[in-house]
Amino acid sequence: MKAYSIVGRDIPRRDARSKATGSAVYTDDIKLPGMLHGRILRSPVPHARILNIDVSRAAALPGVKCVITGQDTPKIKYGNWRLFPATQDEYPLAVDKVRFVGDEVAAVAAVDRDTAEEALSLIRVDYEELPAVYDVRRAIRKDAPLIHEGSPGNVSVERKIAYGDVRAGFREADYVREDTFTVHPVSHAYLEPCSTVARCDPDGRITLWTSTQTPYIVQCLLASVLGMRENDIRVIKPFVGGGFGGKMELRPWEFCAAFMAKKTGRPVKFVLEREEELVFGRRRHPMRITSKVGFKKDGTLVAKDLKILLDGGAYNAMGPTATFLCGNFGAMLYRYPNYRFYGRHVYTNKPPASAMRGFGAPQSLFAAESQMNMAAEDLGIDPIELRLKNAQVPGDVIPDVATISSCGFVECLREVARMSGWNRKRKTHKPGRGIGVGCYSFISGGVFNWFNTQYPFSAAEVRAFSDGTVHLLTMASDIGQGSDTALAQILAEELGLRMEDIRVTSADTAMTPQADLGSWGSRVTLMAGNAVVQAARQIKEALFGAVSARFNLNVIYDFECKEGRVQARGRPDRGVSFGEAVAMAQKANRGEPVVARGYYTPRNKGLVTPAFSFGAQVAEVSVDRETGLVEVEKIWTAHDCGTVINPTAVEGQLEGSIHMGLGYALSEELRMENGRTLNRTFLDYKMPHAPDMPANESLCVDTYEPEGPMGAKEAGEGLVSPTAPAIAEAVYHATGYRCKDLPITPEKILKGMKK
Amino acid sequence: MKAYSIVGRDIPRRDARSKATGSAVYTDDIKLPGMLHGRILRSPVPHARILNIDVSRAAALPGVKCVITGQDTPKIKYGNWRLFPATQDEYPLAVDKVRFVGDEVAAVAAVDRDTAEEALSLIRVDYEELPAVYDVRRAIRKDAPLIHEGSPGNVSVERKIAYGDVRAGFREADYVREDTFTVHPVSHAYLEPCSTVARCDPDGRITLWTSTQTPYIVQCLLASVLGMRENDIRVIKPFVGGGFGGKMELRPWEFCAAFMAKKTGRPVKFVLEREEELVFGRRRHPMRITSKVGFKKDGTLVAKDLKILLDGGAYNAMGPTATFLCGNFGAMLYRYPNYRFYGRHVYTNKPPASAMRGFGAPQSLFAAESQMNMAAEDLGIDPIELRLKNAQVPGDVIPDVATISSCGFVECLREVARMSGWNRKRKTHKPGRGIGVGCYSFISGGVFNWFNTQYPFSAAEVRAFSDGTVHLLTMASDIGQGSDTALAQILAEELGLRMEDIRVTSADTAMTPQADLGSWGSRVTLMAGNAVVQAARQIKEALFGAVSARFNLNVIYDFECKEGRVQARGRPDRGVSFGEAVAMAQKANRGEPVVARGYYTPRNKGLVTPAFSFGAQVAEVSVDRETGLVEVEKIWTAHDCGTVINPTAVEGQLEGSIHMGLGYALSEELRMENGRTLNRTFLDYKMPHAPDMPANESLCVDTYEPEGPMGAKEAGEGLVSPTAPAIAEAVYHATGYRCKDLPITPEKILKGMKK
Repeated sequence: MKAYSIVGRDIPRRDARSKATGSAVYTDDIKLPGMLHGRILRSPVPHARILNIDVSRAAALPGVKCVITGQDTPKIKYGNWRLFPATQDEYPLAVDKVRFVGDEVAAVAAVDRDTAEEALSLIRVDYEELPAVYDVRRAIRKDAPLIHEGSPGNVSVERKIAYGDVRAGFREADYVREDTFTVHPVSHAYLEPCSTVARCDPDGRITLWTSTQTPYIVQCLLASVLGMRENDIRVIKPFVGGGFGGKMELRPWEFCAAFMAKKTGRPVKFVLEREEELVFGRRRHPMRITSKVGFKKDGTLVAKDLKILLDGGAYNAMGPTATFLCGNFGAMLYRYPNYRFYGRHVYTNKPPASAMRGFGAPQSLFAAESQMNMAAEDLGIDPIELRLKNAQVPGDVIPDVATISSCGFVECLREVARMSGWNRKRKTHKPGRGIGVGCYSFISGGVFNWFNTQYPFSAAEVRAFSDGTVHLLTMASDIGQGSDTALAQILAEELGLRMEDIRVTSADTAMTPQADLGSWGSRVTLMAGNAVVQAARQIKEALFGAVSARFNLNVIYDFECKEGRVQARGRPDRGVSFGEAVAMAQKANRGEPVVARGYYTPRNKGLVTPAFSFGAQVAEVSVDRETGLVEVEKIWTAHDCGTVINPTAVEGQLEGSIHMGLGYALSEELRMENGRTLNRTFLDYKMPHAPDMPANESLCVDTYEPEGPMGAKEAGEGLVSPTAPAIAEAVYHATGYRCKDLPITPEKILKGMKK
Repeated sequence: MKAYSIVGRDIPRRDARSKATGSAVYTDDIKLPGMLHGRILRSPVPHARILNIDVSRAAALPGVKCVITGQDTPKIKYGNWRLFPATQDEYPLAVDKVRFVGDEVAAVAAVDRDTAEEALSLIRVDYEELPAVYDVRRAIRKDAPLIHEGSPGNVSVERKIAYGDVRAGFREADYVREDTFTVHPVSHAYLEPCSTVARCDPDGRITLWTSTQTPYIVQCLLASVLGMRENDIRVIKPFVGGGFGGKMELRPWEFCAAFMAKKTGRPVKFVLEREEELVFGRRRHPMRITSKVGFKKDGTLVAKDLKILLDGGAYNAMGPTATFLCGNFGAMLYRYPNYRFYGRHVYTNKPPASAMRGFGAPQSLFAAESQMNMAAEDLGIDPIELRLKNAQVPGDVIPDVATISSCGFVECLREVARMSGWNRKRKTHKPGRGIGVGCYSFISGGVFNWFNTQYPFSAAEVRAFSDGTVHLLTMASDIGQGSDTALAQILAEELGLRMEDIRVTSADTAMTPQADLGSWGSRVTLMAGNAVVQAARQIKEALFGAVSARFNLNVIYDFECKEGRVQARGRPDRGVSFGEAVAMAQKANRGEPVVARGYYTPRNKGLVTPAFSFGAQVAEVSVDRETGLVEVEKIWTAHDCGTVINPTAVEGQLEGSIHMGLGYALSEELRMENGRTLNRTFLDYKMPHAPDMPANESLCVDTYEPEGPMGAKEAGEGLVSPTAPAIAEAVYHATGYRCKDLPITPEKILKGMKK
């Protein structure tokens, strides 16, 4: 591994001190003179036609400055999948119909929040209720209520993948099994509820401060629904308290704030309540996954046939991407010579599901990894051995899905077995105690341009100054994952500077270079990181030239930026300080500042991602056989994220992933009844608490991703997937109960053990 | 004159609506959480050694968070003349001595303004008073008290200009006269008192919002006095309510706010009171001007010998530039074959004088133009005829002073004579009624790099978007003069767009391109305007290439940006909309945004300015022979500012100049007694009010300045000079009283008439 001086070190997060001292400014901390407070009226019914809305009493309430319904708006549909306009199925406020309990119907802006709230209660909406459907299998029936015109059978998106010959594959198989798995909706439960502030300048331009993962997407879609030009809208991302996929779309309150700011001439703020987030908010897709796999006797995989029904809820949201990805993940990790996938994204009268950390992988891999464990048992092969036999390796290509460069999967499997004492523990079985394994692969950003951006996927501007400092401007969005720190590390490394030499300005669509698609799909480190490296290299070329001229060096000299100096490689005597080199480069250009822009768009990497991460996880559990309660004793993880930019940050991602995976496996679930979400508070929505966290031990295997900046690839999202299948297998190992329907509740375990 | 579609039109100011509706955010409107309020303790004595400062009682006052004196600071001197460090003579807070009544001694930051004010009264300073000197002629005597070590004779800067042979010139003269004129201190009296807010980020970086004309200068000097790196400081200029030269330096409160924000970790705000501005603030240089001129009988000028003592007050401030410029202005307007200037900048124990609208010209030209009127009378030649005989014309060169390209001075003289009915009114003399003429020339920015910037003098970044909008980023500072509007007009004109297509971000040292020297010396329209044009032309080249490729055009085609389209010249069928052209250029570059930077530094234009404006003004007055009260009946102006970018803006500058010139001529004066300024409020400081404004009529003569953007040059500052000499001459014409000592008060007139 290459020796780095900043990359690979535990650099404290740039935002740590601001957050710890409370000086960090989140959207809700922004207070503008004359600011109004907005609230949204939501549908109380799952499916209905809107006959009439009477806002007169609300509008007459003293302190109310603006009341709007869908009829007041430009009635332009939006959605993240701009490449296929037919998928854009949402209005900011319902125009004709409501499709789920919580669908946005009207909005109020008033001088304070209480007045706005009171005004909501004065709006009278006449609904004509329509039959509703909540179950994907019922929704695709011919006689099901139609939720959207133009999507017969309530299927909005289909995705097929096929390579090899699946029928022939199964004919060759010695062992075939088919299982159906179901997975449930869970909440992102980010710490900061969504909030937004919009200001309209006298020239009509809008500035929007908003808690988002994707300022650029919000800018473009907001412009579209307001009928404005993109660049007459400026989106600024203040500090964000987590997103996890839940803040990557334009949201109705962003539209309402901007629209009402335009109407009233006063700034308008919206802050959601936790209850709105839980009950009406986006969630992880529930899926119904039917998977058939075939093996040779010796464990060699020969074929897989995967069918997934995604329960999208009332709108597409990021569902098309989830549909696209869960089929890709089904083909990953192992070498399937013959593979077929058929995914359908199905509308139901429930709050829309959308992107959530893992983006199709936690669901698809729960099924795939559980099935792998089941097959191992039937074939009499150790589950890790079975995986090793079929594991993907560097150079593997799956048509349209994966071109794999770096891949440390085999090493991960071996390391996690060693760390966890797998062989011993797996064999010496104690009642009520079990150990299981789960694996993952994940993308380092997406290639397929569903947003149809006209810009490179990431961009960075680097300005170098003669005082030895550097300013990095990028639209990449730090939403708590630490990308501002990681990008500054990459830049400091490339330029041989210290962290305190780097100023970072990020995520302001008017000020930072166009564009960056945002923080999702684990894309930032690789894509924005590459843009940073490209910009930095241009800066270096300018400085190298200046030094070469100053010392009158032979053109074949190599140069380096190292420890604050720019010099002929290994020759500190033939070099100057970074700042002096900048001054020289500037002088050579009659004073013009030293500035460069770098861009990154993945090329020749297929349609999915430029690089894949890999990992394996082992969970050890004890199960109380009286109560069915599962305690996860310890988690071991070996993963391959390429070069580690910041070990503490990677560890933080791992721990956060285990926390989310734990909740997904055992306790978290948005419970639904007739389209209504029943758990309305964190008292009813059972997230693991700090004391619930298992001990954990982890290791990054040493790989170098050629497509990544300094060899790095994703580390933040894939890790959320292996925990549920590992725990499910450990529970089976401990109790004999095999869960195919998440979450693994005590009730299910007790019932399963009785069988 | 070239036909323009945006340039030359009365485009409303971009900031007009914000200012009219009160939504414009000035520095004092900025309120940050936890913000402290600062106040400054000033010296009550004109000259003293500081023996001791006891801040203990102030520091103990509840609510006081920070008290500092010079001893707490890094004790680094600063000053705008970085090129000559010896001229940098100010500490942010006095370290050893105080040198004027008002010199800054200590500062307090407290939870509110009242507490800070109370704390000031608890600071005890022991002074050892020193003899003081207030008069320049006394200050240069050998026995005068020494104000600064290292400046013997209290002369800090000398400036000499000489060309031709002055002795020989005077020998040729048929008529020689020598006069001494004295001019007085006046206040900028900007509407917005100085204010500043500093925030220190957890990483130690400073952000300063400040009411300034020169964000870049403040950034650099603040870094220097704090011992920080320039780019660890970000200076943002909010809306500014006027500067007129009074806000172009680093000021002690800017240092104190930043230093105490660093110490306390809390934002600190300073807002000056009007009394502080009047009593302790910068002012226009009082000067003692001795001018000797020689003519041939026929009125031909043969020689001039000019000596000026500038009363600089206690520190250099912008005095060196004033010293430099008043000698240049003495050589302007007329063809002096032999010229000599000797200027001395003299310290006195008074508040420092500094830059003020006109920057040496109002003083120097009051003398020169008065003397020209006096000579005309003696020679029996009409004053306008005498001027026409000697007037500078295009192509004139004065070594080290002027290389004149465009020059409409002769036309100005003829037009103003025609407009005012000069010949008739001058001849038909009515008692108590008079008419007089005064002229000016002024610079369009300065060439001599006294700030020693390493950057081009102006810079602009232009980002073009496929939605047909363009974003202009520039560090140029709109301080109320309307430069944001003028630069947007220039850009819109160049790109064939409308004003609403242009977004402007200006005057933020971290976000806008390095650098711009600020708003002074009438430099912005020409210098930043040229940078804008250069950037726009690069954008056009990219778009022209894209259109050429799309229509497969012969390489000899010319192209144009016109009415929102990019097309082959005169061939709208071979073109696309601006936005489409941008999209095409982007596609050709695989999505990279269309961005360009332009820069401007004057080259091959000598040491003074790249272009000179000219003008002539006639004032008609009536004088009440009982009271000596002067009423200015009407002012006629003909001036040459090259291409007029915005007629209303030019008219606004003219009216503002007449207002200032009127006050300078007749009523405004900071009255001093033993180093103390006596007029502490606007009740005692007699600015003309709206009803005092004379009728005025003006005309811009048609010239085209080849060095200016679209032919433009300065229009905002030179116009302040002719009013005083024109009124003085008109008063003489009306009363026989010749004023050589401004202002022309009723007392002086009555006394003069008695003689």
